[in-house]
Amino acid sequence: MSITFQVHRRDGAARTGSLATPHGVVETPMFMPVGTQATVKGLTPDQIAATGATIILGNTYHLTLRPGDELIAEMGGLHRFMCWDKPILTDSGGFQVFSLTSQRKITDAGAKFRSHIDGSPLELTPEKAVEIQQNLGSDIAMVLDECPPGDAPPDAMRDAVRRTILWAERCKRHHTRPDQSLFAIVQGGTDLDLRAECARELVAMDFPGYALGGFSVGEAPAAMHVALPTCAALLPDHKPRYLMGVGRPEDLLEGVAAGIDLFDCVMPTRSGRNALAFTYDGPLRLRNARHRRDPAPLESGCPCYTCGHFSRAYLHHLFAADEMLGPTLLSLHNVAFYLRLMADARAAIVDGRFGLFRDRCLARWHPAP
Amino acid sequence: MSITFQVHRRDGAARTGSLATPHGVVETPMFMPVGTQATVKGLTPDQIAATGATIILGNTYHLTLRPGDELIAEMGGLHRFMCWDKPILTDSGGFQVFSLTSQRKITDAGAKFRSHIDGSPLELTPEKAVEIQQNLGSDIAMVLDECPPGDAPPDAMRDAVRRTILWAERCKRHHTRPDQSLFAIVQGGTDLDLRAECARELVAMDFPGYALGGFSVGEAPAAMHVALPTCAALLPDHKPRYLMGVGRPEDLLEGVAAGIDLFDCVMPTRSGRNALAFTYDGPLRLRNARHRRDPAPLESGCPCYTCGHFSRAYLHHLFAADEMLGPTLLSLHNVAFYLRLMADARAAIVDGRFGLFRDRCLARWHPAP
Repeated sequence: MSITFQVHRRDGAARTGSLATPHGVVETPMFMPVGTQATVKGLTPDQIAATGATIILGNTYHLTLRPGDELIAEMGGLHRFMCWDKPILTDSGGFQVFSLTSQRKITDAGAKFRSHIDGSPLELTPEKAVEIQQNLGSDIAMVLDECPPGDAPPDAMRDAVRRTILWAERCKRHHTRPDQSLFAIVQGGTDLDLRAECARELVAMDFPGYALGGFSVGEAPAAMHVALPTCAALLPDHKPRYLMGVGRPEDLLEGVAAGIDLFDCVMPTRSGRNALAFTYDGPLRLRNARHRRDPAPLESGCPCYTCGHFSRAYLHHLFAADEMLGPTLLSLHNVAFYLRLMADARAAIVDGRFGLFRDRCLARWHPAP
Repeated sequence: MSITFQVHRRDGAARTGSLATPHGVVETPMFMPVGTQATVKGLTPDQIAATGATIILGNTYHLTLRPGDELIAEMGGLHRFMCWDKPILTDSGGFQVFSLTSQRKITDAGAKFRSHIDGSPLELTPEKAVEIQQNLGSDIAMVLDECPPGDAPPDAMRDAVRRTILWAERCKRHHTRPDQSLFAIVQGGTDLDLRAECARELVAMDFPGYALGGFSVGEAPAAMHVALPTCAALLPDHKPRYLMGVGRPEDLLEGVAAGIDLFDCVMPTRSGRNALAFTYDGPLRLRNARHRRDPAPLESGCPCYTCGHFSRAYLHHLFAADEMLGPTLLSLHNVAFYLRLMADARAAIVDGRFGLFRDRCLARWHPAP
């Protein structure tokens, strides 16, 4: 096992910890910016690091299609290829197979489907998912799982859980890379019995870390917030817990409250490209004409490059004029905001006031009517 | 007059100098990256400064349309609005009026035309061009000129020169901002008698600097290279000379050889967005499949951020995957290359070997058949 994880402080179910990987230590709870195609969209590695990010996520499905995991291995691995020398976690491609591809056929052997780029026929098996991630050389790899939509019928959900357990075992058996850790993924939707069964089986296999999958696929946020504490408690206390693909700032706070350590989501970068900025005072839509003459920064007191240099008026202008720099500067602020939120959450846990911190944030973002 | 200019060393007609402005000193010959809409496309001010740029260009026509020069003045001027604290030169909008707008009507009073954004009717007069640039607060402003295409009939060219002289005088009379210098523009196409007449009239008005206009509008490069030495020699020796909107690396070297001090062109950023990189070994098209597995940087020995971090394989991948970071990284390298070319030209002039430097570059870029 190439990672170590230590829990430091607790505040209810919330906890701080350190996750040591071959490329450095990650303080948890932590948010991982998403670098789908070997780039966090619009940001250089220097800009990403300047937001305070200490770990990013790469997408196995996208990278095996383009430029190809063997090419990346030949170029010295994903860290060197994209020039990011801090930790990387790669997903297994399962989620993308179930959300992006067409003509899917899932059997116990694996998934057959058509590429979303050129329609060419492809196959992803548990073994193949491991091989790809070993080629990429991420610090943390994920097992291949089946990700049915949140509203899948009970039979489909049960079958997905059975297959996820089967595939996890095959991934573990096939995994050999000593400088990479393989995490398992618990599925089961909002059926807590199914989640418990899935977790029990996977915990028995003794993975170095565990994720909750299936919460980003059409799950209503309220249902997720209710299910999260129970689901998180199904995972071993002394191992890192990762809530995949979630989410909004409020979802991260609910996750931290439930005892989650790691998060990822495209929201800060995707919203940034769409002129939506996150702040402690709630979201700002920079295309809105009311920002046209506003000399204030996005968020006063924010130490990011964008807030340290530019006015809302300038950012409004960049989006009105369709300039590339707008998406870059807003993505940069949003990623920095997510990481500041996590840093503030860690500080609040250490001080034993995380509940208060969360409640104050939620009250600001969703004021009572 | 708010600038001072000193010629330091000469090598034939080529010369080095220092142009001191209210926002800092510019060593010449110098290339100015183009920041059309208050942003050098895809680059943050920090990234622009890291390329070695010490002066950039802003476009009066674009900025008065969007976000508006009065708004920029309200926000503290263009330097503060876009967070660039080094010198800025603004053009007068003449070139854009003649190349981008529709339903143009030119009289001695000024130009009436339709906006290229929304078709709304607009008017630009010499006085208005000065007022806009005073609102922007650039270090160097340009007079409004008439820019006929290079193949305009002799009568039209003569009329444009007459009007350019008339407008220059009105601009000078209207200009009041003490921390801004106003440069005149010599027109006349490839008719050297007309150029001489235009230069004579404008030089008599004693502007602090002079530009050659009309060479980027459909002029054949060979004809420009022939005309340049004569045209440059028409401009006062002790004042800065600026060749507007030109051009390719080889055109810059011909300009320097003719005694030009300042250049601007969208080529390094526009080519960067189109996956074309400039190097001393000639251009590279990064979409070409031969770069797919190439671990080498764009240009070995180039000190720019792109070459210091990324392989051609990675840059090829970014363009193949249509990722924003590709245009940003290539624009960054190209601007840095143009500035390195100028720095190398200055060093060659100081050493009295500029002719050799130019000939070697041209031989590499256009090898004999």
